[in-house]
Amino acid sequence: MAPENESGAGFACPIPIQQYPHVLLAHGGGGKLSQQLLERMFLPAFSNAALEARHDGALLELPSRSLAMTTDSYVVRPLFFPGGDIGSLAVNGTVNDLAMCGARPLYLTAGFILEEGLPMETLWRVVQSMRRSSLDAGVQIVAGDTKVVERGKGDGIYINTSGIGVVESARPISPARVAAGDAILLSGDIGRHGIAVMASREGLEFETALESDCAALSGIVLDLLSDGIRVHCLRDLTRGGLASALVEIAGAARVHIEIEESAVPVLDQVRAACEILGFDPIYLANEGRFVAFVPEREARGALERMRAHPLGASACIIGRVTDRDPGRVTMRSPIGTSRIVEMISGEQLPRIC
Amino acid sequence: MAPENESGAGFACPIPIQQYPHVLLAHGGGGKLSQQLLERMFLPAFSNAALEARHDGALLELPSRSLAMTTDSYVVRPLFFPGGDIGSLAVNGTVNDLAMCGARPLYLTAGFILEEGLPMETLWRVVQSMRRSSLDAGVQIVAGDTKVVERGKGDGIYINTSGIGVVESARPISPARVAAGDAILLSGDIGRHGIAVMASREGLEFETALESDCAALSGIVLDLLSDGIRVHCLRDLTRGGLASALVEIAGAARVHIEIEESAVPVLDQVRAACEILGFDPIYLANEGRFVAFVPEREARGALERMRAHPLGASACIIGRVTDRDPGRVTMRSPIGTSRIVEMISGEQLPRIC
Repeated sequence: MAPENESGAGFACPIPIQQYPHVLLAHGGGGKLSQQLLERMFLPAFSNAALEARHDGALLELPSRSLAMTTDSYVVRPLFFPGGDIGSLAVNGTVNDLAMCGARPLYLTAGFILEEGLPMETLWRVVQSMRRSSLDAGVQIVAGDTKVVERGKGDGIYINTSGIGVVESARPISPARVAAGDAILLSGDIGRHGIAVMASREGLEFETALESDCAALSGIVLDLLSDGIRVHCLRDLTRGGLASALVEIAGAARVHIEIEESAVPVLDQVRAACEILGFDPIYLANEGRFVAFVPEREARGALERMRAHPLGASACIIGRVTDRDPGRVTMRSPIGTSRIVEMISGEQLPRIC
Repeated sequence: MAPENESGAGFACPIPIQQYPHVLLAHGGGGKLSQQLLERMFLPAFSNAALEARHDGALLELPSRSLAMTTDSYVVRPLFFPGGDIGSLAVNGTVNDLAMCGARPLYLTAGFILEEGLPMETLWRVVQSMRRSSLDAGVQIVAGDTKVVERGKGDGIYINTSGIGVVESARPISPARVAAGDAILLSGDIGRHGIAVMASREGLEFETALESDCAALSGIVLDLLSDGIRVHCLRDLTRGGLASALVEIAGAARVHIEIEESAVPVLDQVRAACEILGFDPIYLANEGRFVAFVPEREARGALERMRAHPLGASACIIGRVTDRDPGRVTMRSPIGTSRIVEMISGEQLPRIC
């Protein structure tokens, strides 16, 4: 899942670097240099019939009329970090939002906002990473757009990806379906993406490598659905982390969510970094972790299915839904005390995704 | 179509301006301030069921499985210009790309990249403009995302809109279908968007107001299609203008395109500005103009249909397709000489859309 080891290796940049070592304003102007970027870099990398038609949009035939659609812009800093980069993040993040709707991701669009002066090789590394991630996730990038802004009006590369997928779940999956009696499953340990990006930004080093959890979750989600498990709601734990996801769902569904702190897996390295830096792991961003709400009696089956997938090997049941205190999330400590979990008010780590 | 007269009027900004006069990094952090922006500004402005479900994506039921999908990022400078603003541009531009595929635009996503320090009122004016433009164009904004980057890492507001629509044309509409014998229709005078934005940027003044042509073209295109006219190809004339659109199509279809210079309508003010500034109107950006390729014998009917629509009142036939010189665009001057039209190599006007 993590493509960083291959980044920049294997293929030479298809734009003549001696002539165009950096991105120029004209690469976004709609003229000859825009065309060159499209023809030599984007079309071959994302190769598919819809893109190659060079139309104003992609013409697609879907297998069904029930669709999920989503969008996200990615502004992560730095562009490359242990376990991923802005390219893999942009593909996996949007794939994951579709998966959380119970949909099979099919098609993505990619909108680049490049800063004048960006090394052309950097763009190429990111495009290669997007290519690999989209192949891994089984999606096609069928439409795109590139704009270039002046030096100091951007920060290297910003990417928007939007996506559509066909709904595979027979029953709707949505916060509104969460109900008292649901068990809450977490797909793995939390906080790795946040700490990996932050460490990379600040130059912190760990004794053993800590990598982002960045990955496409569509495979593990479709496994759950194909098993016939009655999933009520799915949510990936990005900006704002586990805490924000749960607070949002408790608010939307008007239910009480109760979490066992000791049940939430956190790697020792992540916990140590949090203690030093004053972070709380439940607020840290993840890019390959999600929670699933399923009826209590289906929790064991769901857990087994998740653990059978490589991305869910350390999945566990972390709590349950009650109707005691609607709209509230509480967390019980190992010694039995309970605290209210709130949405973060400020900014723990800006530009984490 | 041009919403600028209402911009900022009528509705007070729903975010408490005294408390939050400017956008903060935390407005993109996924916590409380992100939620406030979503709940008070975006949800009420773009009000629809898909958005209000607060899911990771929008769940949609389409009327058909034949889809067009597109994306564009908007980085226009300044944010407000005569005849439009970045909000109306972001809605109409993506609506138009779908229309050019012969599709009825249905759903858009909106991804905002805001610069820390942006006046909250400015964001609100842009959101109101997007609301009006999407109502006018008959589309819903069903999913969104907001990121905030540090001061000096953006330029106020960048917006990505992606969109889907259902294909209404019985036959495919695509550059590949352009053939010798086609007539080329232009929907109206060219160059107004480019000159209006440039004049606004540079503080130039005209004797009479010159406004951008920014508008949604889906209505006029669907009129053409519903009349049963066998449209071969449609292309809106954005970055790179009429010239770049024709060069791209001549290249993709391997045909020769011949244009009569005197048949291309250009307002006197636009022509005068071009002469002073050394621009060629055929390279100027438009945001509400398109060319249609139709078989010669259907050209009159298509022209009448276009002229019956307010956005096609000055439509005309500007040239034809031959097989004489595949891949080339030529333009005949009023005195009978012919010149080759090439794609622009540099950058005429950066950040025009």
